Amino acid sequence: MGCTAAQLCFRSDSLSSFGRLGASKQSFPGCFLSLDKSSESGGRAPREQDLLLAAAYVSDAQYNRNIPFETSPQAIRLYYFYNHWTMQAATYFFICIDLSLALFEEPALFPLPFLATSIVEVLCLTAFLGRLVHFAKVTPQMVFWKDTKNICIMLTIVLTLIDLIVYGSLEAVNIRSVRWSRALRPVFLINFPESRQIRRAFRSIRNTLPDILYVFLLFLFSVLMFSLMALKLFGDRGLKTVEGSPYFTNILDIAFELYVLVTTANSPDVMMPAYDFNGWYSLYFITYIIINTYVFLSVFLAVVYNNYRKHLKNEIRKLAYLKRHKMIEAFNLLKVQVGTEFVVKEAQWRRLAKVVAPDISSSHLELLLRVSDEGQKGHVDKMNFLRLADLLNIQVVTINIKRHPLEAWMPRVYQSSASLLVQRMVRHRVFVWVYDVIILVNAIFIALDERNPFISYAEWLFLSLYIIEILLKLYTYEPRSYFGRRQFWNWFDVLIIIAALVATVANTTIQSARKYSSQQILDIVLILRILRLLRVIVSIERFRVIVTTLINIGPAMLTFGGLVLVVYYVFAIIGMEAFHSKVQFFDPNFTAPDALVCGNPALKDSAFARNRYCKNNFNDLASAFILLMELTVVNQWHVLAGGFALVTHQAAKLYFVGFHIVVVILIVNIFIAFILEAFFVAYSLEKSEVETAIEKKIQELGVGIQEEAVQDGKLVDNMDTRDSGFSEDDGDNKRKALKGLYFRIASKKYRTVDALLQQMFESEIAPEDEGPPLDEILNFSPSDICPKNPSFENSA
Amino acid sequence: MGCTAAQLCFRSDSLSSFGRLGASKQSFPGCFLSLDKSSESGGRAPREQDLLLAAAYVSDAQYNRNIPFETSPQAIRLYYFYNHWTMQAATYFFICIDLSLALFEEPALFPLPFLATSIVEVLCLTAFLGRLVHFAKVTPQMVFWKDTKNICIMLTIVLTLIDLIVYGSLEAVNIRSVRWSRALRPVFLINFPESRQIRRAFRSIRNTLPDILYVFLLFLFSVLMFSLMALKLFGDRGLKTVEGSPYFTNILDIAFELYVLVTTANSPDVMMPAYDFNGWYSLYFITYIIINTYVFLSVFLAVVYNNYRKHLKNEIRKLAYLKRHKMIEAFNLLKVQVGTEFVVKEAQWRRLAKVVAPDISSSHLELLLRVSDEGQKGHVDKMNFLRLADLLNIQVVTINIKRHPLEAWMPRVYQSSASLLVQRMVRHRVFVWVYDVIILVNAIFIALDERNPFISYAEWLFLSLYIIEILLKLYTYEPRSYFGRRQFWNWFDVLIIIAALVATVANTTIQSARKYSSQQILDIVLILRILRLLRVIVSIERFRVIVTTLINIGPAMLTFGGLVLVVYYVFAIIGMEAFHSKVQFFDPNFTAPDALVCGNPALKDSAFARNRYCKNNFNDLASAFILLMELTVVNQWHVLAGGFALVTHQAAKLYFVGFHIVVVILIVNIFIAFILEAFFVAYSLEKSEVETAIEKKIQELGVGIQEEAVQDGKLVDNMDTRDSGFSEDDGDNKRKALKGLYFRIASKKYRTVDALLQQMFESEIAPEDEGPPLDEILNFSPSDICPKNPSFENSA
Repeated sequence: MGCTAAQLCFRSDSLSSFGRLGASKQSFPGCFLSLDKSSESGGRAPREQDLLLAAAYVSDAQYNRNIPFETSPQAIRLYYFYNHWTMQAATYFFICIDLSLALFEEPALFPLPFLATSIVEVLCLTAFLGRLVHFAKVTPQMVFWKDTKNICIMLTIVLTLIDLIVYGSLEAVNIRSVRWSRALRPVFLINFPESRQIRRAFRSIRNTLPDILYVFLLFLFSVLMFSLMALKLFGDRGLKTVEGSPYFTNILDIAFELYVLVTTANSPDVMMPAYDFNGWYSLYFITYIIINTYVFLSVFLAVVYNNYRKHLKNEIRKLAYLKRHKMIEAFNLLKVQVGTEFVVKEAQWRRLAKVVAPDISSSHLELLLRVSDEGQKGHVDKMNFLRLADLLNIQVVTINIKRHPLEAWMPRVYQSSASLLVQRMVRHRVFVWVYDVIILVNAIFIALDERNPFISYAEWLFLSLYIIEILLKLYTYEPRSYFGRRQFWNWFDVLIIIAALVATVANTTIQSARKYSSQQILDIVLILRILRLLRVIVSIERFRVIVTTLINIGPAMLTFGGLVLVVYYVFAIIGMEAFHSKVQFFDPNFTAPDALVCGNPALKDSAFARNRYCKNNFNDLASAFILLMELTVVNQWHVLAGGFALVTHQAAKLYFVGFHIVVVILIVNIFIAFILEAFFVAYSLEKSEVETAIEKKIQELGVGIQEEAVQDGKLVDNMDTRDSGFSEDDGDNKRKALKGLYFRIASKKYRTVDALLQQMFESEIAPEDEGPPLDEILNFSPSDICPKNPSFENSA
Repeated sequence: MGCTAAQLCFRSDSLSSFGRLGASKQSFPGCFLSLDKSSESGGRAPREQDLLLAAAYVSDAQYNRNIPFETSPQAIRLYYFYNHWTMQAATYFFICIDLSLALFEEPALFPLPFLATSIVEVLCLTAFLGRLVHFAKVTPQMVFWKDTKNICIMLTIVLTLIDLIVYGSLEAVNIRSVRWSRALRPVFLINFPESRQIRRAFRSIRNTLPDILYVFLLFLFSVLMFSLMALKLFGDRGLKTVEGSPYFTNILDIAFELYVLVTTANSPDVMMPAYDFNGWYSLYFITYIIINTYVFLSVFLAVVYNNYRKHLKNEIRKLAYLKRHKMIEAFNLLKVQVGTEFVVKEAQWRRLAKVVAPDISSSHLELLLRVSDEGQKGHVDKMNFLRLADLLNIQVVTINIKRHPLEAWMPRVYQSSASLLVQRMVRHRVFVWVYDVIILVNAIFIALDERNPFISYAEWLFLSLYIIEILLKLYTYEPRSYFGRRQFWNWFDVLIIIAALVATVANTTIQSARKYSSQQILDIVLILRILRLLRVIVSIERFRVIVTTLINIGPAMLTFGGLVLVVYYVFAIIGMEAFHSKVQFFDPNFTAPDALVCGNPALKDSAFARNRYCKNNFNDLASAFILLMELTVVNQWHVLAGGFALVTHQAAKLYFVGFHIVVVILIVNIFIAFILEAFFVAYSLEKSEVETAIEKKIQELGVGIQEEAVQDGKLVDNMDTRDSGFSEDDGDNKRKALKGLYFRIASKKYRTVDALLQQMFESEIAPEDEGPPLDEILNFSPSDICPKNPSFENSA
């Protein structure tokens, strides 16, 4: 959507440099410059600003950014600045501030005067406007005004300002009105170009809507049919519910009860009066549950999942082709003719890589060059150049382990037979098992009563045992590799132990000094003590695999965190405006007569008050979020809905039904679809070990360089290298002290389904395939991607 | 498993006739005969018994039966008898009788003396034994004794007899013991070879177990960790639940409560005391729910689904290859040499088809021959012969519509302008819309109070309007095509209206005669009246599509019905033995003091009694099934579990947790996996219109025959044919009176995921591919099927 002009801009470039045919006649001011340049660039060295532009393209390809930008030198510099991490962090900072304002506004968790919050809000709006102006300077005018995202942001800023002024002036004359613009705040989170993942999730939902709509209508039809049936079958029987109210006499109540039954929240209760009256009536409810709960809800999941993967594949394909186009642009800017083919000179290539990745180490750069310029001809050809973005994305860790410091410091002692025995002991499997047993014993001690002094002394024993374990490991393994960047579990171990140590010491000091123990610190100590038990997982291979998989899909799950945040925020603001102060929570020890009805007589004898749900209210943002979480979990949501309907109006139930449809039927299903997909992609890769050509080459060459390096001494000095897969189990049998620098591909476990799929898709398109023209790419529809003849493998 | 010897038997055949190499040296008595014959069969016409054997192979291929059978003429005849539908129906009849015995045994819904039920049970066991003996006569001895299914059945028969004798003799001396063998009854349902689908579902579960076990252990570990944390955080606070009992003080109770929280059944309630005490404690519960409910339960679904589709594909592949092998066997029996190639003579082919499908019409047979013998050379070659089983499976409907009877009877009146106007009116879209409006008005009338006489008269008006509609349609459309075999909705319409008419008339008669209305008839009238509203679905295309899809996967869902029946039955029997008479239901109007505690003082003040769950008990099979259904729906299951734990022992909760794990975590997830898969397969086919070569050919030839037939007059006499897709909408514009016999493939919408996948797989294996040797086929493992390089298309 937002890239319509960029595509044309790119395209006019490719037209000129490749002479490809296209129907586009449009061109944009910003494109002429690069068009001129690229047509000139045949024979001479590229200029500095071409290098910058090319670097911008490569960097965009590397991070999958798809922002169309102008190509004037000034705009490129602005674009670099726009993409700088400080600018992005500042934007997110202001978004956070803006969203968290709801904590301080009426109904507030921490009340602040309206003036204070409104000043902060105006500040945030200014920052957003600044970011938008910056974006407008970077991107061509036409593109900017065509992009709905920008319009959305501007509109929201204006609406918020109007709301602030109206609310402020009304408040000045003491009229309370509604701060409706607060529900619009998530617009900023969604619409800044950085939140691509959240936007995609929303797009996914939007795309699903037409398909799901008819299923949903049919589902509603079925619910209404059953409601009518229930009215006729049970309405005249004079049955009573457990609470003594009439049973199934009003069609609207019946429809709501039956909708609740779909969510299973009132499962046997709603059936009991009819079932008590006549056993056969249970058939009605069983039929209802099978049709509406099991079949329809599964169909919802199927529709959502189907759409999710359809659109996911389409977007991946789009991203992959856009990336390739950007790399071709960059190549065209830098290419020089050598013989019959166009290439990029080594010097240019080095400068480019340095601009794109300023922090790259020289040995890493050397490795990348070796991969790109296989024949060491002093230039990089087109095919290899196109790989640059992927190469830069592959985390290559320069493993560079020296001898154990103790060995260097006092080799005699460290290599003595006693020391070696200790080292062998620590590396032995039994060492791990002994500590697993210790952890289990510790678990039992934790479960026992800690007021027993013997047990509280035992805690010190366990702590010291754990500390001894860490020290022994540090003695045996090289500390820098023990604390390597990817040694998640080692870090976890040490941090938990140190935190527990600090907290326990702090607690004891406070306790002995003031004879009372701080509740907060005690809670933290307890949690840390129990988290220590997690280490058992590490020793069991199968558990470690599952946990690692879950941790790997963790970052992508944050997308859903964002999505849920947006939806929760909007619903919370609406709920706070509609329901705040209707329900009050009284301290349980405070026995006011109102406490039993949550301070609202309308709740007398309601299930809401009987279940003591008074604290589930909309009186501040935190309470509202917790209440919405409870609604997401679904159980007892009808009691909550019923309570708020009693204190306001029956129509309030619509709010809760709406929340259920949006969050449970749409978002939770997308979440499940995401987990399923992540699982299947991980599974199919685990089986097949897909390796892209690039990685294979790095691995071959990685070793190659290491061997040569010893001879020509060009890359490295004398270093120790240890086998990369550092773990406690294989440490002792694989310890080979290889000489030289050794590169390890750190990102072997890809992080996201996205990255995995993109890898897979790219390995399928031929390296010389330049993809369809850009406007075609941008208009890819998911139905194109469906194979004309689905194969057996891929359909089941 | 069960086919190990058959494979060798088949194989020695193929060795001799094809000279293929194989390592097998074993042979079985029954195989010699066919081995001899097939080696002779080069030059002369096959004998009668070869034909029978070949027909048995073809029939097995057609129905995907994989029973190894002996090839002596006598055994083949026994085999035919074994597969006869009456024998199968009798087996299922006895299984039903055996299973339903639980209704009549203590604790009984309809009590019968022990003698009566035990005589019936012995009768059933005799029938099962007879079926087994029959099977033993058909199948080679070695195969029979190696097959665990048969051993299972025999063992169950013996155990049941022992149990009957022990129980009977104990009862004779008035000692009550446990009829434990009743839980074994589903063994018969599972283990007779006909229940392949249910067995496969069980296999699917069994295959999933190792994969799911580690996830489940990790999940349990996580629950225990959180329990420990809860004990430490909340145990000493002196908090109370709503009921006033201590909150989170016992580790076992906590673990159970937290397990219940995973199922969300006690969702906000379990959190409320801690949340009321301190808002931050909600974080503990939110973390718990995200990790254990959302992530782990999704992973369970992913693991189950992944295994399901992995094994499904493997089994489909196995079936497809076995089918081909059987067809090759059949070909080898009947082949004669013509020129350089082996073929089957037309006469033999006809006789074979007649034996396999005795009811086939001669024109259908002719069509199949035309498809198989394209060049009309008087014989069928191997490639075409192999298709026979598929050809027979394709339902070819001979459409053979005459003129409207009224037109034939009184053409002048029927073709008069008034009559044509009526016909055009009925065919018009507006006619449908008018009736949709009538239905909606009817819905409103139903919702209104029927004691109003105006409304009860309106009911007669609506009924007559519907009858007029049907009569008009019958006047316009040809009655035999209106009631065609596949005109589901027309049948539905007419049946509902007639039933409503009969019921309404019956009700009115009874009412006017005896001045009281029978409740049962009134209920039926009401339901029928409301079911009529379903017709609205028919007029909306999108709705019709969804409903048709759901109806199409209906038969396959019955597999899950069988699976659920088996599991429910076992759990119900166990539950009835453990919990019967512990909880009593009293009529709500009967105000005995015991009624409030379900007749058991232990339930005083329990949530079970407070919610009036007394009728949810194990006092008879029907109640037990309804209770298990409620447990499947999950909500409030902890209340039910708690109630039964109170009246027996806390360990009773294990029964309910076990049920939850088996039914909800395994079976419901497999059900969801099945629906997802069915949906995706249906989707990918809808997009691509996979048609196998065979069908394409039939369609080409179907028309071809029809055209030729007019010239040579060989196949048909003068008949009217109407376009096949008869529906109200396209009736008027597509009405072409084509001359001749017209074949229509009726099974265009395949019924099951199985059939669909098999079609897809078969379209991928080359027609001349004979597949791997049989023992290899039977040992296919799911991991073979995984592509070495998963493609982008098939992994996402």
